[in-house]
Amino acid sequence: MALNPASEEFTALLADSVPAAALQLPADAFSLDLRGRFTGQDGFVIAPSDSDEVARIVRLCHQWQVPLVPVGGATGLVAGHLAQDLPRPVIVSSARMNRIRGISPGASIITAEAGCTLQSIQQAAASVGRIFPMALASKGSCHIGGNLATNSGGALTIKHGNMRDLCLGLEVVLPDGRIWNGLSGLRKDNQGYDVRNLLIGSEGTLGIITAASLRLTRPPVERIAALAAVRNPATARELLEFILDRFGDMLTAFELLSRTGFEFLAETGSNFHQPFSELPRWAVLIDIGSSCEFGLVDKFADDLSLAAEKSLIEDAVIADNAARIEKMWEMREAIPEANRRIGSVSSHDIAVPIESIAEFIAEADNSVAAIGEFRINCFGHMGDGNLHYNVFPLPGESSDRTARKRIMDSIHALVRSYGGSISAEHGTGRAKAAELKRYSDPAFFDTLRQIKSALDPIGIMNPGAVLEQALD
Amino acid sequence: MALNPASEEFTALLADSVPAAALQLPADAFSLDLRGRFTGQDGFVIAPSDSDEVARIVRLCHQWQVPLVPVGGATGLVAGHLAQDLPRPVIVSSARMNRIRGISPGASIITAEAGCTLQSIQQAAASVGRIFPMALASKGSCHIGGNLATNSGGALTIKHGNMRDLCLGLEVVLPDGRIWNGLSGLRKDNQGYDVRNLLIGSEGTLGIITAASLRLTRPPVERIAALAAVRNPATARELLEFILDRFGDMLTAFELLSRTGFEFLAETGSNFHQPFSELPRWAVLIDIGSSCEFGLVDKFADDLSLAAEKSLIEDAVIADNAARIEKMWEMREAIPEANRRIGSVSSHDIAVPIESIAEFIAEADNSVAAIGEFRINCFGHMGDGNLHYNVFPLPGESSDRTARKRIMDSIHALVRSYGGSISAEHGTGRAKAAELKRYSDPAFFDTLRQIKSALDPIGIMNPGAVLEQALD
Repeated sequence: MALNPASEEFTALLADSVPAAALQLPADAFSLDLRGRFTGQDGFVIAPSDSDEVARIVRLCHQWQVPLVPVGGATGLVAGHLAQDLPRPVIVSSARMNRIRGISPGASIITAEAGCTLQSIQQAAASVGRIFPMALASKGSCHIGGNLATNSGGALTIKHGNMRDLCLGLEVVLPDGRIWNGLSGLRKDNQGYDVRNLLIGSEGTLGIITAASLRLTRPPVERIAALAAVRNPATARELLEFILDRFGDMLTAFELLSRTGFEFLAETGSNFHQPFSELPRWAVLIDIGSSCEFGLVDKFADDLSLAAEKSLIEDAVIADNAARIEKMWEMREAIPEANRRIGSVSSHDIAVPIESIAEFIAEADNSVAAIGEFRINCFGHMGDGNLHYNVFPLPGESSDRTARKRIMDSIHALVRSYGGSISAEHGTGRAKAAELKRYSDPAFFDTLRQIKSALDPIGIMNPGAVLEQALD
Repeated sequence: MALNPASEEFTALLADSVPAAALQLPADAFSLDLRGRFTGQDGFVIAPSDSDEVARIVRLCHQWQVPLVPVGGATGLVAGHLAQDLPRPVIVSSARMNRIRGISPGASIITAEAGCTLQSIQQAAASVGRIFPMALASKGSCHIGGNLATNSGGALTIKHGNMRDLCLGLEVVLPDGRIWNGLSGLRKDNQGYDVRNLLIGSEGTLGIITAASLRLTRPPVERIAALAAVRNPATARELLEFILDRFGDMLTAFELLSRTGFEFLAETGSNFHQPFSELPRWAVLIDIGSSCEFGLVDKFADDLSLAAEKSLIEDAVIADNAARIEKMWEMREAIPEANRRIGSVSSHDIAVPIESIAEFIAEADNSVAAIGEFRINCFGHMGDGNLHYNVFPLPGESSDRTARKRIMDSIHALVRSYGGSISAEHGTGRAKAAELKRYSDPAFFDTLRQIKSALDPIGIMNPGAVLEQALD
């Protein structure tokens, strides 16, 4: 169906429907992405303060057939929040919906509005002796609404799952402007189809998430982390098995880091430095927590010695208190920022079956080498098979953007040959919509389109994200 | 759209499309439910052996507009598998799709066909040193396809989640007969909308699940269970907090049992008897497992003594080895069978917020007492807020079915007033379809109908389950 631009007549109506404060946001804050790779078109920016205001906005857009693009902390990497090729859209910011509506340590549930930052939710949880176990480098800026819209993953998936696993209920404004209050805190609820999980990860194309009930958990009473130098990804994979065999579900994170990542930290003047006497080719960050106190630190140190005897690790530093563990994670989380400063040719947020991860990395390296000379920073959430396989120009060279498509095609084809995912945890957005179509099982892809047409028949909700726009 | 009956002409075509073995199942095995409460109509029973055969069957039904009803182990309690008021349907049994397609202890994944019993999957997992953590009393008969179709829950949800949390990928025959091969084993995959979770819990109304990739986990290295007599549900709730504060996510199950349940075991001549010198009014079954060895048994015994000092428990028996733990669970799992033998007036599979559970039970008891004299067996998965609130005739009296509707109305209204769910873990089926409509948020319910119409426009897939049939 044809969409209309947000005309002056329409935006005057829109402005009348919300308090003046909803219009006091700088429009240009919503047109760029973190990596500076995508530019969004201009739109009419509006920041409602509650779900009723969102509902009024969506109803008007529905009546006038005007496209709307929701935006949270604007930390997305796939242009899901950046309007492109649309009649002038309404850009709905969650910036003013940032209340914690309730928190219950007894039920271990927090109910938060979409515009709360991940960090503010974690602080609220900490204030009642709980944690919200989602670890993202962008925690200070990203909004929980965006985390839900993209089903974000992060470093703790191996233990705590993705956003879907952490969300018990949603409040959503549907494409016709009706509010679905599904803010349940129930662990078991089989009433009807799983609309909650359908909305999570739909990137604003099926509705706008305005609030969520989220699962909290108790913090571990003992915790330890280590950075261990390993010979190669195959050894890292063996070490993962070794740790799982000894600690099972106490393993909270298992992150892979590469020499390139450490080099990037040094080259970009980061405060964080790798702690080994010799720069390791690969390393892993291991984080383990226990709900009972039993001497985790000693057991872990013993097991690391055994791992060294078995040549699973070359060297290791242990962080045995909260401050040191925090420092270790700060180093890990500084890597995306260092990557951005270096400036990648092509970045890939991919997942492959854990059994094939070492083989995949070797093959990917070969296929990139066949295209040209680059630096590769391959790192990420190895414990759940999710890698950020990012390709950079050689030192001193500028980013050769012409190679991007060849590299991306090559990596994505390889991912598919392993039965992997070309969109693991960052979402599909606009950047990968064509790739999603290209690589999807046709029956599956048609199902996506059927769902979109059924729930948003006019097609006003974030058009072009996830599913490419049907151009008339 | 009008549906056609499975005519002789049509069933002859259907029979030609599958091997002869697919037709050798007794039709009458698929027309009753376990509680003898519902009767299904007769249909043309067919048991395909793989997804290609299912696809052929669905394609033919789609072409001829003939309704089909999928059935697994026929252990469902809400008539989801029992055709009612349909033109003669095709009944598609998963009995012959019972292969384990693959199992990887390294990746902790099993790929199993829909007709595998839960127990056979657990045995396969055990053979490679893993567990599949779903505990259902019907494990020997229920099919994993049915567990997925109903998003079954069971006793381990507090630790391991429901079927959705345990499923990584699906193979599904869609309503037009196309096969979607979504048998991914990935922990992170954000390619498109969450069609997997939409199919899970859709009770065969959006497609037929033919196989699934399921998450396995390592068994605990230390495990302990206890049956503890408690004064009342409020104390049970306090005890739950006490245990969570000390064992956190090591708590694997926290089941509530009532005196009535113990009486039913005795009255029905069960082999299982409650172990206390005095029959307790209430009891809880606690199961705890650890991934590291640290003396869990001693710590737990100490903590139980402390709980007794604090009057959180009246008495307790501890099971400290596998055989005793197994025996304790067998007693717990014998209760549904004892209930069936006694014969309920009305049974309710409900969930309420954990904070309100004691208050809810007291109010529910009062509202049932206002209707008449009954025996109440209220038991279930207290740790995740899921109760089976079942109402029975007094000893010697026969089941007064006329009271059923009043009791159900009263319990369901109360559940809703607490923000609970009238369909927690058994599914909606046909038995609760009218109730689902009655109690649903209209915007949510319309979304269910939009999804159903979009994916199954002719309406051949298990018509009448979840969503009431639109009668022409």
